[in-house]
Amino acid sequence: MIAILEAGCSVRAKAEIVRLIESVGCRVQVSESESGSLIGVVGQGAAGLEERLAGMAGVAEVRPVAPPYPLVSREHHPEATTIKLDRCTIGGRELTVMAGPCSVESEEQLMAVARAAAEAGARVLRGGAFKPRSSPYSFQGLGERGLELLAAAREETGLAVVTEVLAPEDVELVARHADILQIGARSMQNFRLLAAVGDQPRPVLLKRGLMATSEELLMAAEYVVAHGNPRVVLCERGIRTFETATRNTLDIAAIPVLRARSHLPVIVDPSHAAGYREYVPALSLAAIAAGADGLIVEVHPDPERALSDGRQSLTPRAFSAMMGEVGGVAAAVGRAMPAPLRRGEA
Amino acid sequence: MIAILEAGCSVRAKAEIVRLIESVGCRVQVSESESGSLIGVVGQGAAGLEERLAGMAGVAEVRPVAPPYPLVSREHHPEATTIKLDRCTIGGRELTVMAGPCSVESEEQLMAVARAAAEAGARVLRGGAFKPRSSPYSFQGLGERGLELLAAAREETGLAVVTEVLAPEDVELVARHADILQIGARSMQNFRLLAAVGDQPRPVLLKRGLMATSEELLMAAEYVVAHGNPRVVLCERGIRTFETATRNTLDIAAIPVLRARSHLPVIVDPSHAAGYREYVPALSLAAIAAGADGLIVEVHPDPERALSDGRQSLTPRAFSAMMGEVGGVAAAVGRAMPAPLRRGEA
Amino acid sequence: MIAILEAGCSVRAKAEIVRLIESVGCRVQVSESESGSLIGVVGQGAAGLEERLAGMAGVAEVRPVAPPYPLVSREHHPEATTIKLDRCTIGGRELTVMAGPCSVESEEQLMAVARAAAEAGARVLRGGAFKPRSSPYSFQGLGERGLELLAAAREETGLAVVTEVLAPEDVELVARHADILQIGARSMQNFRLLAAVGDQPRPVLLKRGLMATSEELLMAAEYVVAHGNPRVVLCERGIRTFETATRNTLDIAAIPVLRARSHLPVIVDPSHAAGYREYVPALSLAAIAAGADGLIVEVHPDPERALSDGRQSLTPRAFSAMMGEVGGVAAAVGRAMPAPLRRGEA
Amino acid sequence: MIAILEAGCSVRAKAEIVRLIESVGCRVQVSESESGSLIGVVGQGAAGLEERLAGMAGVAEVRPVAPPYPLVSREHHPEATTIKLDRCTIGGRELTVMAGPCSVESEEQLMAVARAAAEAGARVLRGGAFKPRSSPYSFQGLGERGLELLAAAREETGLAVVTEVLAPEDVELVARHADILQIGARSMQNFRLLAAVGDQPRPVLLKRGLMATSEELLMAAEYVVAHGNPRVVLCERGIRTFETATRNTLDIAAIPVLRARSHLPVIVDPSHAAGYREYVPALSLAAIAAGADGLIVEVHPDPERALSDGRQSLTPRAFSAMMGEVGGVAAAVGRAMPAPLRRGEA
Repeated sequence: MIAILEAGCSVRAKAEIVRLIESVGCRVQVSESESGSLIGVVGQGAAGLEERLAGMAGVAEVRPVAPPYPLVSREHHPEATTIKLDRCTIGGRELTVMAGPCSVESEEQLMAVARAAAEAGARVLRGGAFKPRSSPYSFQGLGERGLELLAAAREETGLAVVTEVLAPEDVELVARHADILQIGARSMQNFRLLAAVGDQPRPVLLKRGLMATSEELLMAAEYVVAHGNPRVVLCERGIRTFETATRNTLDIAAIPVLRARSHLPVIVDPSHAAGYREYVPALSLAAIAAGADGLIVEVHPDPERALSDGRQSLTPRAFSAMMGEVGGVAAAVGRAMPAPLRRGEA
Repeated sequence: MIAILEAGCSVRAKAEIVRLIESVGCRVQVSESESGSLIGVVGQGAAGLEERLAGMAGVAEVRPVAPPYPLVSREHHPEATTIKLDRCTIGGRELTVMAGPCSVESEEQLMAVARAAAEAGARVLRGGAFKPRSSPYSFQGLGERGLELLAAAREETGLAVVTEVLAPEDVELVARHADILQIGARSMQNFRLLAAVGDQPRPVLLKRGLMATSEELLMAAEYVVAHGNPRVVLCERGIRTFETATRNTLDIAAIPVLRARSHLPVIVDPSHAAGYREYVPALSLAAIAAGADGLIVEVHPDPERALSDGRQSLTPRAFSAMMGEVGGVAAAVGRAMPAPLRRGEA
Repeated sequence: MIAILEAGCSVRAKAEIVRLIESVGCRVQVSESESGSLIGVVGQGAAGLEERLAGMAGVAEVRPVAPPYPLVSREHHPEATTIKLDRCTIGGRELTVMAGPCSVESEEQLMAVARAAAEAGARVLRGGAFKPRSSPYSFQGLGERGLELLAAAREETGLAVVTEVLAPEDVELVARHADILQIGARSMQNFRLLAAVGDQPRPVLLKRGLMATSEELLMAAEYVVAHGNPRVVLCERGIRTFETATRNTLDIAAIPVLRARSHLPVIVDPSHAAGYREYVPALSLAAIAAGADGLIVEVHPDPERALSDGRQSLTPRAFSAMMGEVGGVAAAVGRAMPAPLRRGEA
Repeated sequence: MIAILEAGCSVRAKAEIVRLIESVGCRVQVSESESGSLIGVVGQGAAGLEERLAGMAGVAEVRPVAPPYPLVSREHHPEATTIKLDRCTIGGRELTVMAGPCSVESEEQLMAVARAAAEAGARVLRGGAFKPRSSPYSFQGLGERGLELLAAAREETGLAVVTEVLAPEDVELVARHADILQIGARSMQNFRLLAAVGDQPRPVLLKRGLMATSEELLMAAEYVVAHGNPRVVLCERGIRTFETATRNTLDIAAIPVLRARSHLPVIVDPSHAAGYREYVPALSLAAIAAGADGLIVEVHPDPERALSDGRQSLTPRAFSAMMGEVGGVAAAVGRAMPAPLRRGEA
């Protein structure tokens, strides 16, 4: 249930509203935008409140939830959300490119990629420390040691760090080292985990499940926001279809669809979508042309020896070449690439 | 990596083998069957052990893992696994039918269903206490109170209890009340949760993800078994396709496919597959005819008022009628329905 | 548009109605059933007729078409349609099993299968003479010679013949030799071909497209019926999904869905669905248990040497064994297998 | 089977080769490119020829077919194919945009769109005269009258004409009026129709089936080329998935995949992929950025009143605006939009 507040609703009136909601054991989620304020009521006692809330000062209207993701919907929040980090803003005019290896494997590997990424214009370093692997016998990531290496790479390069968190019990640890917490495709409907990352202050990169509709992705985002964290970045990474020429099928239309329905920024992962590095540049350019706010790309100094996903990783050289092309398309659609954080040595 | 032991490998030789594996930080998972013994080596140091293991007394062969689910594969374990509970055996000649409401809503609701289920021939009571819901605003289940009601229903009816567990932190609580822990479709690749239910003694009902191949289901089962719990029941519950006449598409062929590849029992959930109660009997009969070891069916005393999934729930009367037909098909394929635990009053 | 006639509508009134419809260039399709008569109005002038038709004697009601397949819908035709051939009736209490090779390859091959099929209880011989092949370089069938061999096999065994027709120009030729014309999955939306088989008197076996919804299958059937041929058999043969363990995914729920929505008989092709012979028996039993009116099964005397689809063909011996099991499940669901047309020599 | 000819193979040697192939009832398909000549041998006697062909003068090598589409594969034909029409070249540096209504409805409608398309930079006019409709009761197109209107629009605007052909018997008629013959998605595996358009000289626009893999699309193209027509344009138009926010899912990766595997030009239909006009510009820009050689877009002067597909048609004004953006992205990826054929009046 959501309560739409009157334009001039006083702070005092708001406080009364919140008090009432909390008095029945529900939780409050306030969403303020230029076009008005909205109070989401979360919890099982919500239904009983409808009439009382509607009668309170400052409340313009009480509605059952429709669309089912009121807090992330554009309906009541027409302006795009931007998410500010130290050296980049996700969702603004400048694109945000995240790059790095699938898994953090060693200091040498990570530093090589981080430097190359910073030189090529990326602003965020990606790298898995806790890896969800479909086999119990596969490499599961370096764990905390991987997080420390990521933090060290940030120190040296100025790149922000995004890395996956697999379970509620790891959220605090990962949030201590990372700037953005990634929820992987396989965890998109791990509702406890969504609640846990909603209950801490780091921005969240939420990847679409392999067989999730765009509406389900928005409802997963709603979980995070309803638990208190409005800083969510949506990520399209390919869905599962019958086509076998690529690992997944990039749903390029999800970009305009998500942007039409939600105010949250949208980025694209061309690496997992394609599964083969030769198709990554075409998908990256397409994503930017279609309106994406950025990319998350796998880069590895020696893809043939990567412990995971080598077939879809770009070399630093190929990544750098691609970034030049991305900049051209970005300019053509009114966006821009930020200046590189580091100067290349060549 | 797996080590295949020689037929007459002594206990002493086995102990040496285990000691070596554990000395490098790996974990051991032993699988004994009439056709031989197998030791799964789980952990990242495994690769380095290959040569040393191969040279030890009692080891016939060391293989990299192929198929990628050696412990659940039929290849080294040709006999079907049966899982014994107090009053039923899953995977034997007698079918196991699990029935109950989607969510535990109240004592009255649950008891009404439990009695009807017991009278109709079910041996397990299903019911959700912790519910994974795609919206944060939907009913999330009664939690611990729901578990207590389930346990009370077991006391009265003799039915075993299966209920879903959503997060590692709840495993101990749920295992205290339930006889079988269910991993839901959305959690099939929640690898931490798989590890957690692998590390406790209750049997696990593992539902196939909406987007998971049958191989991925087997690899999820491998996680549970590799963490120490060999008692896993596989559950086909429909996959996501383009067809909209049903909620999901029941992959009926998964039954012979899974039985050919694995020794674990396979049951079918016709309710989530169909999404509409009128199709549940046809799917149930088809499942038994195709070789399933049982069913898990949603039954509600008043489906129109169910808090979740009412459209796909059978009334107790319809369930009872269906069970008669199921018994007929079971007999035609060499299986049987167990006698009801309770006698009906009519 | 459809006109629903009054119960006692006279022949004379019907004739007036038909005359009006034809006077504006539309075509008439009459559907008579015990529960009433229906006139489908096909053609582009239909919209203009609505008011005039509604005012005519004998017309109870004029409706825009809803569901979009009024002639095949159960709504106005609750009794199941049965299709009588010389020695079998499709859609009655007795099941109809069609069996034979994917392609007619030679007289020896075909006769061997035909005899075995007749001995095992099949009543229809299948075999492709015109083959739709995805490569121009693959075997395309024996053409007219294949049709002649099929007709000869009918002479000897008494089996009816079903074979595929690929193009409108072949309809007359194929109908001269075959008892049932098959529209293959790839032709399900070849609307000219649907019109052509609708415009001749042989029954039509209409296979569902690999990615067609059940509603689209019913609309394809509506084309055939609207062009004048009410004798259509629907065939579920598997849809395309992400699962790779089988060639296609048999949509077992399509059986109750199609039977609920349409009065036409429904049969199942387990061979193309499975793609592997070892899964064909389980799918066949499941189909009968779910309410199918019959099966169409690939049988080859030497599957390893088949020119097409050998991997999914049963040997005559395996087919015969399966037919015994099918009979058992049929009895359990109130159906029966007909007596074999031939006695086996063993 | 294909015979790869020696670089200096004489005309006389070629003639001998062709004679041998035809003497056993096979057909010959020659593919000449800068990197060499290739002779495809089509027909069932091919296998027997292998050894004899290999021994002939001028033959470098004889290979069984691999990939299964030798004539359209890039393997033996690395240069991109370009298809020249009067005023445009498909597959060159300049993009080819095809625009027009789903169905030709009237002279006024068609002329309005044709003029607007020509002014905005399109070089080809699309419009359906024969429509494949899933219901027999839907508008089926104006037929020959529609073709005449298209030809008249060409006269006035200079646009080439592309329109769909549904059946072999219509090929001659459609080819008389149109410059490019379209094979619709539902006909992609209508092999008789593929053969028929392969046997006439107009270029063919081949749309990918809703359920077809990219390999199957290439094999359908192989049919056309093997029957004698090398001028085929591939068209990605969206595949069927579980996502419902769009009508189909545009497989954007098919562009680089098809370009890597084949030398044929690739265009994209964003209208049928999206199903909603608001997403058409984003998909169009994405397609060009990903390397497509052009677009085919639905434009209607009054989409709300279109007889078919109105929801996905752009107004002329929206189309013109989009073309400006397309030109920008084209320039960014090294392509260009041709100058408009007509000057706008504004």
